[in-house]
Amino acid sequence: MDIAIMGYGVVGSGVAEVIAINGEKVAAKCGQPSVDVKYILDLRDFPGDVNEKKIIKDFNVILNDKDVKVVVETMGGQHPAFEFVSSCLKAGKSVVTSNKELVAAKGDVLFKLAKENNVNFMFEASVGGGIPVLRPIDRCLAANQIDEVAGILNGTTNFILTMMIYNSMSFEDALKLAQDNGYAEKDPTADIEGFDACRKICILASLCFGKHVFPDSVYTEGITKITLEDVEYARAWGGVIKLLGRAKRLEGDKISAMVSPAFVKNESILSGVNDVFNAILVRGNAVGDVCFYGRGAGKMATASAVVADVIDCINYIDNRKAMGWDDAVENYVVDHSDVETSFYIRAKGDKVFALKAAEEIFGDISILNRNNAPEDEFAFVTPVAKEGILAEKLAKLADVEILSKIRVENY
Amino acid sequence: MDIAIMGYGVVGSGVAEVIAINGEKVAAKCGQPSVDVKYILDLRDFPGDVNEKKIIKDFNVILNDKDVKVVVETMGGQHPAFEFVSSCLKAGKSVVTSNKELVAAKGDVLFKLAKENNVNFMFEASVGGGIPVLRPIDRCLAANQIDEVAGILNGTTNFILTMMIYNSMSFEDALKLAQDNGYAEKDPTADIEGFDACRKICILASLCFGKHVFPDSVYTEGITKITLEDVEYARAWGGVIKLLGRAKRLEGDKISAMVSPAFVKNESILSGVNDVFNAILVRGNAVGDVCFYGRGAGKMATASAVVADVIDCINYIDNRKAMGWDDAVENYVVDHSDVETSFYIRAKGDKVFALKAAEEIFGDISILNRNNAPEDEFAFVTPVAKEGILAEKLAKLADVEILSKIRVENY
Repeated sequence: MDIAIMGYGVVGSGVAEVIAINGEKVAAKCGQPSVDVKYILDLRDFPGDVNEKKIIKDFNVILNDKDVKVVVETMGGQHPAFEFVSSCLKAGKSVVTSNKELVAAKGDVLFKLAKENNVNFMFEASVGGGIPVLRPIDRCLAANQIDEVAGILNGTTNFILTMMIYNSMSFEDALKLAQDNGYAEKDPTADIEGFDACRKICILASLCFGKHVFPDSVYTEGITKITLEDVEYARAWGGVIKLLGRAKRLEGDKISAMVSPAFVKNESILSGVNDVFNAILVRGNAVGDVCFYGRGAGKMATASAVVADVIDCINYIDNRKAMGWDDAVENYVVDHSDVETSFYIRAKGDKVFALKAAEEIFGDISILNRNNAPEDEFAFVTPVAKEGILAEKLAKLADVEILSKIRVENY
Repeated sequence: MDIAIMGYGVVGSGVAEVIAINGEKVAAKCGQPSVDVKYILDLRDFPGDVNEKKIIKDFNVILNDKDVKVVVETMGGQHPAFEFVSSCLKAGKSVVTSNKELVAAKGDVLFKLAKENNVNFMFEASVGGGIPVLRPIDRCLAANQIDEVAGILNGTTNFILTMMIYNSMSFEDALKLAQDNGYAEKDPTADIEGFDACRKICILASLCFGKHVFPDSVYTEGITKITLEDVEYARAWGGVIKLLGRAKRLEGDKISAMVSPAFVKNESILSGVNDVFNAILVRGNAVGDVCFYGRGAGKMATASAVVADVIDCINYIDNRKAMGWDDAVENYVVDHSDVETSFYIRAKGDKVFALKAAEEIFGDISILNRNNAPEDEFAFVTPVAKEGILAEKLAKLADVEILSKIRVENY
């Protein structure tokens, strides 16, 4: 069985490598004598590369080769990935992608194309890298109504937070270390501002709750404002700060969906997810909490998920295995001001006076302390209420400067 | 679509309840107008039960009803579960079981029967209760060579250890609390002696490495000898004690497989798995470490996995979806004396003299300390070597009484 790979970057080259290393097992799993990479589409040259002879620059070679029934898309970005994937599906080829941007932006369109052409469109690698998560949610938790999904969905930010929590590194130093280690790109915006995690929670929310969720409907906040003081207050509270993507089923066929830093209790399995690891927690009405943990990025881990999808595509080549969701609807994701949460607040002002005022405004607050705090610094956790209401109350806290505001979660 | 349930105990009644609660979703997932429990086989009476009218006492009613194409076995035990399951498979009915004892003892035979009769035999719920783990290993990690699998596979013992670690309860008190909470049975032998975990690691090892592993070939040690002193030394070492089932691919088409308490580092994701929760860590040659976490037992969680299998059986009723392994072979599991490990040793004797002797015998040992230890107590961790060699060396440590010997693991 011949396949083609579009995009010979980190993941694409990993796919070729996994098939080379585990080829026998891969072929056996789909009852083929062998699974072979026939073409690799990339505009760059790779002189001396083991797959140099397979590199092509013309997409039409793949499109017009009837022997290639499964195509892997690991180019990233929306264009020309969307056009190429669409053309492959229309030509009766199954497509496997690791491209979260593509799935989050165009999943709904691509499912329909796959269905119309009776082929598979699979995207396990688009969330959680090598971690089996989308298929297990779709298949193994099929008997559940999923009520919530939450996860540490970005390895770069989790590495930075881990360095801040355990090595007391500043955000800036931890980001530099992540870049030096190759975990963060030169322009780290998509990671540290939460955009990458946002695409992934969109895909998870779409799958768990059944309707397409677009990234622009999801409130997204990164980790750039987190300080070591906040890390210390989280420790005093009994937990750690994690960048969480999460979504929740609400009444009236609506959902909440959000990406932001959050206080997570030490008792939570998510608190122990460190370094570049990711984890996705799913809350079902029968199974309770289950969690999937592993490397959320990286060449071989991501390729592991892509090749598993390739195997499935081959196994179900004439017998489509659909996974997807319905089209987006208006006002499906509620505004974050209507989401219930509690806030950790760090502020500057007259401590005694301000905390007394905070108690009067919010009711039952939990005051947090840290060693060597300046005399005019104070911190507390509010009761649970809608974000909008908490914001209004916070505005009433006169004569203080709000330094930090971080959500508190119960996963 | 009509199904039958054999055994109306905790799990069986959970299956009926999940189908009642999430029936619409279940039916949609397998493209049926509805999925209905037609019969429930149980020798007991259930007066006033919501399903009272479905209870039957004659297995042949199920066997002879051509409309029942999927049968759930939640009776537990080997007999008559094996006979009933075999008869169903031979009659062309797919079977879903949660019965780990049955799968560990007779999986090989039942796979063949399923294949011969072109029906499905599914058993996701036999390991890890509601946690998706067997299918994700088989499908989502299909592109990997699995090198190791290890897990906290028994909720009862994990609850007891959690109470010992975090509440400083003695083993006896923690066991009593587990019994009072309904987590442990009156006769807790199967849990606390590791037999339950043994069946589960057999199923995992069989699936990961491809050949049937029988429980009697797996060295099994329970948690009854663990003391609070050991818990304290583990803390000093930087970790916790967990009951781990684990298996590893070795050279020459052999494996190791074992159940025993183990020191697990705080950095390991397994160290944060507390109370009745289970977790299974899988190490693949492409994906690295992935971990699956959730409730390993309980009515609704286990039923969640059973009903997911039922959905799959219905979806693949004319198109068998095989998951299984080959027959057992002799001497496939190496003797535990040939397995590499390091030991934590706690002993009584002349501390200074004995530790000096231990250093001479073992080489580079790590000495551990705890507060308020008796003057004649000492503890250390040995270097890594084969267990047989470590045992021989330990026997050379003269004039000491060995109080505890616990393996140290690197998961």
